[in-house]
Amino acid sequence: MRIVDLIEKKKQNQEHTSEEIKFLIESIMNGTAQDYQISAWLMAVYFNGLSETETANLTQAMINSGEVIDFGNLTDSIVDKHSTGGVGDKVTITLIPLLAAAGVPVAKLSGRGLGHTGGTIDKLESIPGFNTQLSIKELIAQVQKINVAIGAQTQNLTPADGKLYALRDVTATVDSMPLIASSVVSKKIASGAKNIILDVKYGSGAFMKTPEDAVGLSKLMVNIGKILNKSITAVITSMEEPLGRAVGNSLEIIESIEFLKGNIKTGDVAELTYSFATIALLQLGIYDDENEARNYLKELVESGQALEKFKELITAQGGNPDIINNYDLFDLPAYKVECESKKNGFVHNIDAYKVAYACKLLGAGRDRKTDPIDYSVGIFLNKKTGEEVHKGDILYTIYSNDPDKTKIAQKYCDEAFVVNENKPTSNNMIYKIIRVEDDEDV
Amino acid sequence: MRIVDLIEKKKQNQEHTSEEIKFLIESIMNGTAQDYQISAWLMAVYFNGLSETETANLTQAMINSGEVIDFGNLTDSIVDKHSTGGVGDKVTITLIPLLAAAGVPVAKLSGRGLGHTGGTIDKLESIPGFNTQLSIKELIAQVQKINVAIGAQTQNLTPADGKLYALRDVTATVDSMPLIASSVVSKKIASGAKNIILDVKYGSGAFMKTPEDAVGLSKLMVNIGKILNKSITAVITSMEEPLGRAVGNSLEIIESIEFLKGNIKTGDVAELTYSFATIALLQLGIYDDENEARNYLKELVESGQALEKFKELITAQGGNPDIINNYDLFDLPAYKVECESKKNGFVHNIDAYKVAYACKLLGAGRDRKTDPIDYSVGIFLNKKTGEEVHKGDILYTIYSNDPDKTKIAQKYCDEAFVVNENKPTSNNMIYKIIRVEDDEDV
Repeated sequence: MRIVDLIEKKKQNQEHTSEEIKFLIESIMNGTAQDYQISAWLMAVYFNGLSETETANLTQAMINSGEVIDFGNLTDSIVDKHSTGGVGDKVTITLIPLLAAAGVPVAKLSGRGLGHTGGTIDKLESIPGFNTQLSIKELIAQVQKINVAIGAQTQNLTPADGKLYALRDVTATVDSMPLIASSVVSKKIASGAKNIILDVKYGSGAFMKTPEDAVGLSKLMVNIGKILNKSITAVITSMEEPLGRAVGNSLEIIESIEFLKGNIKTGDVAELTYSFATIALLQLGIYDDENEARNYLKELVESGQALEKFKELITAQGGNPDIINNYDLFDLPAYKVECESKKNGFVHNIDAYKVAYACKLLGAGRDRKTDPIDYSVGIFLNKKTGEEVHKGDILYTIYSNDPDKTKIAQKYCDEAFVVNENKPTSNNMIYKIIRVEDDEDV
Repeated sequence: MRIVDLIEKKKQNQEHTSEEIKFLIESIMNGTAQDYQISAWLMAVYFNGLSETETANLTQAMINSGEVIDFGNLTDSIVDKHSTGGVGDKVTITLIPLLAAAGVPVAKLSGRGLGHTGGTIDKLESIPGFNTQLSIKELIAQVQKINVAIGAQTQNLTPADGKLYALRDVTATVDSMPLIASSVVSKKIASGAKNIILDVKYGSGAFMKTPEDAVGLSKLMVNIGKILNKSITAVITSMEEPLGRAVGNSLEIIESIEFLKGNIKTGDVAELTYSFATIALLQLGIYDDENEARNYLKELVESGQALEKFKELITAQGGNPDIINNYDLFDLPAYKVECESKKNGFVHNIDAYKVAYACKLLGAGRDRKTDPIDYSVGIFLNKKTGEEVHKGDILYTIYSNDPDKTKIAQKYCDEAFVVNENKPTSNNMIYKIIRVEDDEDV
C-alpha cells in the first residue's frame, strides 16, 4: 500500500477500506507518511468528503493511535458532556453536581484552556485548594464514594488527531465535516464514556456558521457513535454572545454556585444545564418523560441537593467548601470598574470573541500551556442580549489588577456591545437535538 | 500575504491575482512555503482548476524562477518543437535538417533521456564524435553559419516547475490540466524560441488518455502562449504504438537518415515530420498554402537537400558524416535476434510501454542522469500496426549485447504485439491541430 495511491483514490472520490484508513493513520504515527502527502489527502477529503463508514474508521484509527481511558465497570453508566467551545461556558460545572445529585455517576476529565479563556480545569482551580491531579484510579474511587469526580486530562489521547489538526490548521483544511466529526468523536470516545452529550455550537464565533451545518455535523457524529457502539446525543445551541453573565475563572465558579443555589432560574446557563441533564436522564433510561425529568432536576436545585453535591465534590478534592457562602475567599482582583451604557435601547448582541479577547488581556487566559492564569480577573455582563438599557445603566463590570489593561479591555467590551433602539427578536438557545434513536428533529 | 490564505482562496474557487501567484512561486523558491502547504494548494487546484489568466501567471512566475535562454535577434525567427514524450520519437532529428534546408533557422536545445528510452541528445551522441556541449553563443554562431544547431540543455530552466513536479508526483496531483500546461509551456518559453510547435500525444501510454483531453490541454497551452506573447501551435497525435520502426539510439538515427534519403515516404515518421515542418512554414508566413508548403518540403527530401543539411550539421558539431552512407561506423551490437510471428493475422497494436521497457533493459535507457547508455542496442519493428503478418514472418528484431537480457526483452516484445485475424481500422496519426489564430479544428 502506498500513500500516493490512497490520495489518488480519494481524489477519484472512491471509498477507502478500513485497512487503508488504518494504514494512513499508522503511517502518520510512524512517520512514513510525509506531511505533504497527508495535506494533499486532507484537501481531497475536503472536496470529496468521507462516507460515514470511512469517518467511523478514521475515528477508530485515531482512537487507536494513543491511550484510551478505561473507567472499568463505570463505563456504561457514566455520562460525558463536551462542548465545541464557547465563551463563558460553565455548563460542565453546573451540570456535574446536578447529575450526581440525580444519581448519575459522573467521572469527568477536562482540559485546560488555551487562548481566550480558561478551561473547566482552570476555573475549578480558582477554588482555593481544589486538586485536579487525579489518576483514573482515584477518579473511579471518588465516583464510587460520592458519585462525582473531575480531573485534568493528562493522558496522551488521539495523538494522530493532534498531528492531523496541526496540518489542517496551516493548509486550510479545518472546515471539513468528516474531519471535524472524527476529531471531536475520537477524543470523546478515547475519554472513556459510553454516553456522550455533545454541545454543538453554531454562530459567528463557532466552527459551524449556520444551524444547518451544525445539524449536518451533529448527525454525522451521532451516526459515527452508533457505528462505534457509543450513545451520542448532539445538542445544537447558538453561540452569538457569551454564555451566562460571567467570563473569567472565579467569576464563572461564582455564577455556577448562584445557579446551584437556585438564584438563576432562567437564561442560557439554566436552560442548557437543565436540558443537558434531562437528556442524560432520558438517555440512561432513568426517566422516560422529559417534563418529569426536568421537574425532578429543578427540585434537586431548589432543595439544595445539587449545591450540597458540589460542596461534597469540592471537599473530596481538597478545596475549601466555605467559598460557597463566602466569595471573598476567592483570589480577589485589585478593583472593579463598572462601565455604563452611552445610550438608551436594547442590547442586540454582545460579540463573544471581543469579550473573550478582553478577558485574556486582563489575564484570564493564556497562550502557552505553561503560562500562569489570573483567576480573579474577568468581565461580568450586567446586561445580556434582549435586555433593555438606559443611558447610564451599568452594561458590564471589569474585574482587573492592572489599570492599563482595564482601559484596553473596556475598549473591546464597548465594541462588543451592540445597543439599538428597537427590541430584538429572541432566539431559542437550543436549535435542535439529534439523537441516535430517531436521527430526527426534537 | 500568507500561503494558508492562498490555499483557502483556491479552495473557495476564487481567482488568484498575479501578485498572489508570484508570491506563491517565490515562497516555494525561497523555502518559506512549506511542502505540505504547496501540496494542499496543488490538490485544491486539481479540484477547482486555474483560469487561463492564472495559468499564464503561473507559467510566467515559473519562467522567472530560473534562467531564460536568449537567442538574440534569432528569437523571432527560430522554431522550437516539443513532444510530450513518445517511444521511438525521432521526429526532432528528421525535422531540424528539413526546416534548416527550407531556410528556417533552427536553434534547438534538447534534453537527455530518463527512464525508458534515450533523449534526442543521447540519440545524436550515438553518432561518433558528435558534440552536443555547445554554449548559447556557439549555438547562435552555428545557426548563423549553417542555419541549424542542436545542443544539450544545461541551463537551470524553471526550477520552480521542477520543485512543483516533484511534489505533484508523490501527491497524486500530476493530472491537472493547468498544472501540466504551465509546466510544459514554461519550459518551452524559458528555452528561448518565439515560435513553438507542441506535439501533444494522446493514448494509453500518454498523459492524455483521450483526444478530447488532448484538445483541452492544447487549447489551454495555445492560449497561455498568446497571453505571454508566444506563437504556439499544438498538434494532437495518437501514441498507441512506438513512432516509426526503430527504438534505440543509433537505430533511430539510422531510421532518420533513411527518411532524409527519401527511403521512407509514408508512415508515422514521414507524416509527422512533414506536418510539423509544414506548420512551421505556415506559422512563419513563408508559405500561405499548406499543399504548396508540403510539396516544397518533399522536394527538399527527394532532392537530397535535407540530407545534405544533416550532413552539414553532423560535420559542424564534430561528428563523422560518413555514417550517413556506412551504418557500420556506429557502435555495433554483438548480435541481433529476429523474432517470428507465431500466427497469421494483422498487427492490431504494439504496446509502446512494453517495447520501451525492453529497450531500457537492453541498455538503451537509464535510471539516473549519470548512468551510461549503450547506443548500439534496441528493437526494430519489422511489422507495424495494420500490417499483415504470416506465421514465421519476422515481427521484430532485437539488437543486443547480452543473451540473458535478450531473452527478457523478447518476452516483453512478444507481449507487446497484439496479432488478430481481422484487419484493424486505421486511425489518422494527427487528430487535430490547434492554432492561436483560430483556436479551431483544422
